[in-house]
Amino acid sequence: MSSGFQKCHTLMITGANRGLGLQMVKALVNSSHCPRKVIATTRDKSRAKVSGMVCSDNVVSIGYFRLAYAINQDSIEQASKEVESLLGDEGLNCLINNAGINISGTLETVEAEQMMKNYETNAVSPLMITKAFLPLLRKAAKQGTGMGIHRAAVVNVSSLLGSIELNWGPGAEFKTYPYRASKAALNMLTRCVAVDLTPEGILCMAVHPGWVQTDMGGPDALLSKEESINGVLSVIGSLSEKNNGGFLDYTGKTLPW
Amino acid sequence: MSSGFQKCHTLMITGANRGLGLQMVKALVNSSHCPRKVIATTRDKSRAKVSGMVCSDNVVSIGYFRLAYAINQDSIEQASKEVESLLGDEGLNCLINNAGINISGTLETVEAEQMMKNYETNAVSPLMITKAFLPLLRKAAKQGTGMGIHRAAVVNVSSLLGSIELNWGPGAEFKTYPYRASKAALNMLTRCVAVDLTPEGILCMAVHPGWVQTDMGGPDALLSKEESINGVLSVIGSLSEKNNGGFLDYTGKTLPW
Repeated sequence: MSSGFQKCHTLMITGANRGLGLQMVKALVNSSHCPRKVIATTRDKSRAKVSGMVCSDNVVSIGYFRLAYAINQDSIEQASKEVESLLGDEGLNCLINNAGINISGTLETVEAEQMMKNYETNAVSPLMITKAFLPLLRKAAKQGTGMGIHRAAVVNVSSLLGSIELNWGPGAEFKTYPYRASKAALNMLTRCVAVDLTPEGILCMAVHPGWVQTDMGGPDALLSKEESINGVLSVIGSLSEKNNGGFLDYTGKTLPW
Repeated sequence: MSSGFQKCHTLMITGANRGLGLQMVKALVNSSHCPRKVIATTRDKSRAKVSGMVCSDNVVSIGYFRLAYAINQDSIEQASKEVESLLGDEGLNCLINNAGINISGTLETVEAEQMMKNYETNAVSPLMITKAFLPLLRKAAKQGTGMGIHRAAVVNVSSLLGSIELNWGPGAEFKTYPYRASKAALNMLTRCVAVDLTPEGILCMAVHPGWVQTDMGGPDALLSKEESINGVLSVIGSLSEKNNGGFLDYTGKTLPW
């Protein structure tokens, strides 16, 4: 994990009950540079898996807050209030929009409802969550200089499958219309948010975690959760102004839109 | 208008009651290379504006079919049946997914419902319409060789504002989250469809018509409807295999995703 985490005091990650989100929380709490406060959210509190984990001493609090999968503005606003009371004047240094789903659908099978559902969860929800947590990100941003997670950053967990450019030839092998469209839209929203928050010193970027052995990625995936998340956290920890509005994979390589 | 139209016998365009869609129908019926059958669709038959226009002799039929704006699968399937009975064994050489809306929304004002609505109309509807008209496109494709509107093509009317790459610096001036995300998703779907239909000889591409003086573009826009549509029709008429899965503006210039 890179040095940015030394000055990242508060971090929130959505979809932390399983897969990459859970692995990220585990890796963070087991590292020597763990943020003082890690907020993990999940759709369903009963799915929270980190509570009760042995945490290193510098983890003051790991809160699991319910944050609806599909858009539930009440749930988002309730969570932002709870997190605000936990973080107080510190604000939020890093928001990781990790929650997402992959609804399969080929040209022949895809239906409108699948398209809408995947878009809601993977593109619209991260935007609405970012909006709700903006006051906390702004609070943190006012206390720092430069750009990165030492100040305030929004990291959207996207996918190579959201790259329009790479959806051709061998890169077009995975035919999942709802997911691909939702991640391309998330990439656009990443860029929109980056443009709008640059004047306030809040960074926004998209990261591709690789094809990972999770419930979503399946057993044939190329990377273990550990390999992926070690890379992703290294990328997040190293973020600076030059990555604002960018799209990086877990090795730090820039991907085409 | 380019030579491709000489062998494009059947063409359908959605959202043809006003703006660019209406202009495209007008330009087609007034040209010497007008397809024998031009199908114009609109949400609402009472909005049809071409019926009663003086058409050149080679326009056998201009049908206005009701095709819902938001997704109404019944409406789409009903329209595809009516169009099939009109086109018969000829099939459909060119489908132009032109219908679209621009729902404004900045980071501060955007709401989930606006995001969903614009996505439904600008990205999901074109996909569902393409699916419904695939049998007719396939019928036409079986009768030709090569790629282009002389055989079978799907043209999605996209926008420069859907370019993620160009949404930076001066290109980021227009802040319309719902519209931008929907067009980026449409670009991804264009690419998905192109990949899947290539083996059948059906071309799919996205075109940016320019910033045009329409109800959507407003009076400050740079181009008249005539200038835009003359360019767009020239691009469409010249489509060939090298444009499959591509993103061109009305001058034929390739745009970055």
